[in-house]
Amino acid sequence: MLKNIKELAEIVQGVVLGDESLTLLGVASLENAKTGDVIFVESAKFLAKALESAASAIVLSKKISLSESTGKTFIIVDYPKLAFSKIIREFFPITKPLAITHSSAIISETSQLALGASVGAYSVIGENTRIGKNSSIGIHCVIGRDVEIGENSIIHSNVTVYDKVKIGNNVIIHSNTVIGSDGFGYVFHQGEYHKFPQIGDVIIENNVEIGSNVSIDRGALGSTIIGQGTKIDNLVQIAHNVKIGKNCVLAAQVGVSGSSIIEDNVVVGGQVGIADHVKLETGSIIGAQAGIPTGKIIRKGLMVWGTPARPIDDFKTIYAHTQNLPALKERVIKIEKQLSQLDKLDKLDN
Amino acid sequence: MLKNIKELAEIVQGVVLGDESLTLLGVASLENAKTGDVIFVESAKFLAKALESAASAIVLSKKISLSESTGKTFIIVDYPKLAFSKIIREFFPITKPLAITHSSAIISETSQLALGASVGAYSVIGENTRIGKNSSIGIHCVIGRDVEIGENSIIHSNVTVYDKVKIGNNVIIHSNTVIGSDGFGYVFHQGEYHKFPQIGDVIIENNVEIGSNVSIDRGALGSTIIGQGTKIDNLVQIAHNVKIGKNCVLAAQVGVSGSSIIEDNVVVGGQVGIADHVKLETGSIIGAQAGIPTGKIIRKGLMVWGTPARPIDDFKTIYAHTQNLPALKERVIKIEKQLSQLDKLDKLDN
Amino acid sequence: MLKNIKELAEIVQGVVLGDESLTLLGVASLENAKTGDVIFVESAKFLAKALESAASAIVLSKKISLSESTGKTFIIVDYPKLAFSKIIREFFPITKPLAITHSSAIISETSQLALGASVGAYSVIGENTRIGKNSSIGIHCVIGRDVEIGENSIIHSNVTVYDKVKIGNNVIIHSNTVIGSDGFGYVFHQGEYHKFPQIGDVIIENNVEIGSNVSIDRGALGSTIIGQGTKIDNLVQIAHNVKIGKNCVLAAQVGVSGSSIIEDNVVVGGQVGIADHVKLETGSIIGAQAGIPTGKIIRKGLMVWGTPARPIDDFKTIYAHTQNLPALKERVIKIEKQLSQLDKLDKLDN
Repeated sequence: MLKNIKELAEIVQGVVLGDESLTLLGVASLENAKTGDVIFVESAKFLAKALESAASAIVLSKKISLSESTGKTFIIVDYPKLAFSKIIREFFPITKPLAITHSSAIISETSQLALGASVGAYSVIGENTRIGKNSSIGIHCVIGRDVEIGENSIIHSNVTVYDKVKIGNNVIIHSNTVIGSDGFGYVFHQGEYHKFPQIGDVIIENNVEIGSNVSIDRGALGSTIIGQGTKIDNLVQIAHNVKIGKNCVLAAQVGVSGSSIIEDNVVVGGQVGIADHVKLETGSIIGAQAGIPTGKIIRKGLMVWGTPARPIDDFKTIYAHTQNLPALKERVIKIEKQLSQLDKLDKLDN
Repeated sequence: MLKNIKELAEIVQGVVLGDESLTLLGVASLENAKTGDVIFVESAKFLAKALESAASAIVLSKKISLSESTGKTFIIVDYPKLAFSKIIREFFPITKPLAITHSSAIISETSQLALGASVGAYSVIGENTRIGKNSSIGIHCVIGRDVEIGENSIIHSNVTVYDKVKIGNNVIIHSNTVIGSDGFGYVFHQGEYHKFPQIGDVIIENNVEIGSNVSIDRGALGSTIIGQGTKIDNLVQIAHNVKIGKNCVLAAQVGVSGSSIIEDNVVVGGQVGIADHVKLETGSIIGAQAGIPTGKIIRKGLMVWGTPARPIDDFKTIYAHTQNLPALKERVIKIEKQLSQLDKLDKLDN
Repeated sequence: MLKNIKELAEIVQGVVLGDESLTLLGVASLENAKTGDVIFVESAKFLAKALESAASAIVLSKKISLSESTGKTFIIVDYPKLAFSKIIREFFPITKPLAITHSSAIISETSQLALGASVGAYSVIGENTRIGKNSSIGIHCVIGRDVEIGENSIIHSNVTVYDKVKIGNNVIIHSNTVIGSDGFGYVFHQGEYHKFPQIGDVIIENNVEIGSNVSIDRGALGSTIIGQGTKIDNLVQIAHNVKIGKNCVLAAQVGVSGSSIIEDNVVVGGQVGIADHVKLETGSIIGAQAGIPTGKIIRKGLMVWGTPARPIDDFKTIYAHTQNLPALKERVIKIEKQLSQLDKLDKLDN
């Protein structure tokens, strides 16, 4: 696919610096760029490498100044990564499946598919389920009964959605993810665990993206909620009755236990474990592999690390101190020797 | 669905205190209760909040004393959470699929489905596999050959069961879980890993529940065993030849390595890692994210935390001591100064 | 299945010591051996137990010396575990599915299946996809468009392979694994996360084995690569643009973040977390649950543990020192008392 640089610049509201007639062949990373490719540079420290690359064009932040002749053509923009991501879409438009439901899909007569909605081969759609305009359900999906899926959402293949789950607009769910399985709730009685019925639901708001092999359990009585714009990476566990706010990021393999609350704009690093009834306040940041104990509150904007988690500066300080423990012990031993020496001297003196 | 409180009380062997003619509309949590709802209170500290809620009825422990007039009606019982879970089931009975095998299911002629067993759309059942009375297989399941599934078990959609797996009665397996995949066994020889054949099987005893996206590997030679009544949460890894006893709880994202033994009544917190050839003795409790090294034995009833795990009191003591390391170092520095002072004085003295 | 010991010995290039006419009935582990079984012993310390077992034959390292009469028959070899794994295969040959594509499989007319390739029931194969000689695709798999799968590879049931993924020869992929889902890449702009298109691919080289419920994301722009002979256990997360070299081992629940590089012959323990832009050099070993921070390089052959990871000897030293912190503090308190005593004496003296 060939693209003229001037047209690309217009799409991203940028300015061409150099050859406006340049035809581009593709997009690339800085490391792999070939002649004809466009790349992007956000930070001045990568500029030299970009100029040395074979790339023909560079999407560049207007904050970065250029010396006079570089041999490259530039698209100067405010936000180079954002602009570049739009340019990628020009070369690689999203290929939505045809708005056709495959003849092998089994769709309950009581369900409703809006205009432009599609269902892939062998998928099964339960009773009273509604799928909104232009949403696509992949191949081999199982969508339960009384499910609502909004508009322009994409459910990839092999996804399982249990009954009564609500999914908003522009939601993306990757393959083999499970939404709405039973929460892990039991009553321990006379030496055995008795299942506590899990009759709640799951609400996934607009613009959420969920990775592959994710498990999101339904509420025991109320709802499990994933707030608008939140992004969840692969292999994440969300337990029953968890409430996650807007525009949060949960990296891969995070686990969130029952009834915990994650407010807006929270960033949770990979493999973090969050126990039950925790509250992560707005804008807090949890370092990778940290563990937040039951009932703990992490204050607004605070960054923490370790298990149990401490403020990150404390963590680093303590880590450095533990690193120096052998030296500290040596100092104590030396002191003890000196004291014993003094003691002897004292005894000699007296 | 409307329920009379007196009938509910009889079902849970409780006593009504208040309006015996009360009609209830639903169940709720303390936080979300509306008029017509029944809630439950196990501990006196939640009583005040429960009395202030809009709930019409409260399932209450007989250990909690009430002041005279509260405006609520009560069901007084020995075990309020257990009673409440039964009341939920009155409002939300388990809806088993019709005991009908969908015409699209592919079922080997050499397999046997007992009376009341059902197989969902597009599921595939292998040769010589037997499915017991009233068990239901979801949609899009792949059940291998020579598999045995007992009575009243529920296999949710998109589950994969490899050949020769044995599953007992009243077992629940959630979606996208895999039972019986090959263990991670190789022979390292001349710089490469050669597959060690994994020819064992998996035995899942009665009353086990397994979450979604769980991986349970078959034994290399013998069996991987999940004991009766044990509950396994989402995204858990059980390696080859692991033996888990009765009535254990494994929270989400736990990993158990090859040949480890977990005895009865063990509680394993979320994201715990258990290396190979470990033994967790009866009643031991492993705190979230703890790591148990190869070959380690955790003694009967012991509670441990950290990586490598220590007894929890030790862990907390050491954690507090590390927290105080900066202060300890300051004290050592002060001592060194004092000593150097003394030394100078000594030298002055002499 | 009956096997003559002399024929088995020839297959593994071993020498029979004892009854060459012995007929064997099966293979077993040392713990579960019955009469008629063959077991293996690599290390002299297990010999006594093996001799006491009911096993009829023992595959034994030629390095282990035997006293004269043992009542067992032996196959003496250089590499007993490797030989034993070949003997297992004699008793339990790999049962490949018939090279028949099930009539319910939906295979694009533009795709190509080589001689001996097979596709299981209900699997769906996309456009322009090629499947090599003798490779088998399980039941309920979804294989995208422009996918290449080599020869003799086995894709188990319920696997999802996204578009443009390349899979080599002799690759094994276990059930419910996802290859080629979108990487977790966003541009944060004006308070929201905007999807950065993930248009790269995944390359899985020859002789790789991948467990169940694994997620391997496609590159954002370039490729995610799993090198030849590498083995990946269950529930592992491989992010976009990760490059893994040859003959590595990644145990269960490991997470590798974006753009990290794992060179050849690296061993990564269970639940290890590797942040982005990390490099694990050839032959490095990462202890279970360790965490490697962003940008960190682990040097050739180094073994590390902890979060953030340190060289394992340092880790153990520090761990022991933290264990002794209460004692160290007591020593400091004692010193302080002595000093205060000295101080008083000094004051008395003067």
